[in-house]
Amino acid sequence: MFSITVRDHLMIAHSFRGEVFGPAQRLHGATFLVDATFRRPELDDDNIVVDIGLATKELGEVVSEMNYRNLDDEPVFAGTNTSTEFLAKVVADRLAERIGKGALGEGARGLTGLTVTLHESHVAWASYEREL
Amino acid sequence: MFSITVRDHLMIAHSFRGEVFGPAQRLHGATFLVDATFRRPELDDDNIVVDIGLATKELGEVVSEMNYRNLDDEPVFAGTNTSTEFLAKVVADRLAERIGKGALGEGARGLTGLTVTLHESHVAWASYEREL
Amino acid sequence: MFSITVRDHLMIAHSFRGEVFGPAQRLHGATFLVDATFRRPELDDDNIVVDIGLATKELGEVVSEMNYRNLDDEPVFAGTNTSTEFLAKVVADRLAERIGKGALGEGARGLTGLTVTLHESHVAWASYEREL
Amino acid sequence: MFSITVRDHLMIAHSFRGEVFGPAQRLHGATFLVDATFRRPELDDDNIVVDIGLATKELGEVVSEMNYRNLDDEPVFAGTNTSTEFLAKVVADRLAERIGKGALGEGARGLTGLTVTLHESHVAWASYEREL
Amino acid sequence: MFSITVRDHLMIAHSFRGEVFGPAQRLHGATFLVDATFRRPELDDDNIVVDIGLATKELGEVVSEMNYRNLDDEPVFAGTNTSTEFLAKVVADRLAERIGKGALGEGARGLTGLTVTLHESHVAWASYEREL
Amino acid sequence: MFSITVRDHLMIAHSFRGEVFGPAQRLHGATFLVDATFRRPELDDDNIVVDIGLATKELGEVVSEMNYRNLDDEPVFAGTNTSTEFLAKVVADRLAERIGKGALGEGARGLTGLTVTLHESHVAWASYEREL
Repeated sequence: MFSITVRDHLMIAHSFRGEVFGPAQRLHGATFLVDATFRRPELDDDNIVVDIGLATKELGEVVSEMNYRNLDDEPVFAGTNTSTEFLAKVVADRLAERIGKGALGEGARGLTGLTVTLHESHVAWASYEREL
Repeated sequence: MFSITVRDHLMIAHSFRGEVFGPAQRLHGATFLVDATFRRPELDDDNIVVDIGLATKELGEVVSEMNYRNLDDEPVFAGTNTSTEFLAKVVADRLAERIGKGALGEGARGLTGLTVTLHESHVAWASYEREL
Repeated sequence: MFSITVRDHLMIAHSFRGEVFGPAQRLHGATFLVDATFRRPELDDDNIVVDIGLATKELGEVVSEMNYRNLDDEPVFAGTNTSTEFLAKVVADRLAERIGKGALGEGARGLTGLTVTLHESHVAWASYEREL
Repeated sequence: MFSITVRDHLMIAHSFRGEVFGPAQRLHGATFLVDATFRRPELDDDNIVVDIGLATKELGEVVSEMNYRNLDDEPVFAGTNTSTEFLAKVVADRLAERIGKGALGEGARGLTGLTVTLHESHVAWASYEREL
Repeated sequence: MFSITVRDHLMIAHSFRGEVFGPAQRLHGATFLVDATFRRPELDDDNIVVDIGLATKELGEVVSEMNYRNLDDEPVFAGTNTSTEFLAKVVADRLAERIGKGALGEGARGLTGLTVTLHESHVAWASYEREL
Repeated sequence: MFSITVRDHLMIAHSFRGEVFGPAQRLHGATFLVDATFRRPELDDDNIVVDIGLATKELGEVVSEMNYRNLDDEPVFAGTNTSTEFLAKVVADRLAERIGKGALGEGARGLTGLTVTLHESHVAWASYEREL
């Protein structure tokens, strides 16, 4: 199995609801390093998984939809705890949708899986892995 | 599949038995960066895998049982090569035991897997992966 | 010249005023990795710059005063752009005040300089350096 | 499942053919950080996956076969896009061949899988995973 | 003294002349992580050293002038060993020229120093530091 | 001012004397990532600070004199707290002695300064800086 991974980052504000979150129930923020991994069993005709430049561009667009925002004010996340693991799924699903629409090229239809990891600090990170 | 990972570190002395280890047969030491990854297929009611604060606290307690010690003097490791990969299993099994006892909360009973990685330097690390 | 550095992290929300900041004028957030470096020309009687455990504890207390907060709501920062470089100075000055009060021990009075670096992402960081 | 990983690096020149590569069609170069992960379900008689020193030595020899070269001039890569993901497979297959010949010791015949990751920068990397 | 640092990267081919370089006399290549640090004693009216977005943009333009090239073919480097430390100076001097021309804004005229670090691998890097 | 830095690592056992060290008074150990930085105002005739290969080799030899040892048993460290900052000075002074003897080549006599940083974990490190 082959994969390539590209990294971007995201700076957001948000708060959590639930006693388990302690002081993180207050409005605070995070820089998330966002790693998107694309997988396929065989390389395409150019001998690649997917073009790293194109993967970087699409990840950048997904990230920019949330960047420099207070997620508590985003209608799409109303009533939802925007935990690191949940946001990893949001990024993965939005990338999957773009792949399905051909944004990563026709060759990218050979992709079979996707993992997104969000690092919230040097000591904590979360991932979501899905098939395509 | 979702996961979260938390990091701590551990500073121990030990020695190895067996010619394969060369100079590492002498008493020496290591800082291990310890990464514990918790996995589950669906998020819990708080929209998380497990509370990162609680996971950090439990990992810290497992680490503190070995920290600042000469593992050659620990009865539980008598006659055992405390290799990086072996210690990854020790940390994983002790975390699994704590999860089983409810230390990570009732929601953590939904966890299905655990991976522990110990980095012994910037150029070598080891992992142990198990189910829960 | 000798130095020791300890690392912690901080998760805050804030916004900036001024066209130069573009989308960062919106309420957003950041994880800051916080590195505090303590300098002195000679080691103390214990052969150290300052105790790493004590330095870590004091840095942790300075960090906790700002952690999990919206800096726009903190009276002490009213009307101030809480840029990464400015916050590096805030952390440095608060550490210097603690050193002056003896929080790092009597031996720490031999410290002559302090640098604080805040990493806002894997591609941007800021520092403030001062004498003691 | 247990694993150990060792890291080395590689500095090569090459160029790509195909419009998808844009400016990377020109002769350029890369430093690849090369991580080789060796897996097995149970530890060997020395309580290890494989000797880290020996794994490092064999990875170093595989790397040195390509290091400080223009891959466009290597007959074995004639007409091939030496993408990061393709080179990860080259390193993995050459390590597998060495394992088969006993270069990692008789105990290493218990290895069941191998993953090689090549980091081409701090924001992009590729992997190839195979069985043994 | 305040500073901010921004990071980019650069992928080039080149070769060296001189026996000291051993196998690096052959045409090979490198990824350089490029860190540019901007220093000034006091913050500007926006409470910053220089805008991180603008600094990132200008560093990106300096990097793009060399990116994806064989430096042996660049007339400006004819007869020159394009060592990591030399290239750090090239990047620093080109940034200094841009600052002088106002590319980082009028406020950036308060900058007093500049350091550029090029990482050629995880185990070697070089820096050049200059005044402005 | 120019500099180059090379990295190696070191795995030792030791213990500390003094109440300030708490549990680190017990025999324990550490992996130290060792970074040696060599400085000079102008490049040499080969357009370098010092050969990175040669610097790596000499650092490796200094490191190997202490590697895989219990520093409490080394006569040269008898009665001394082998703190991270103290060991940074040991490595720097031994490198300086080698430079003085010509081990880094005649050109290396142009070096004017040296800094050694020892990372004891991902959250603590120490440096010693000296002239040559």
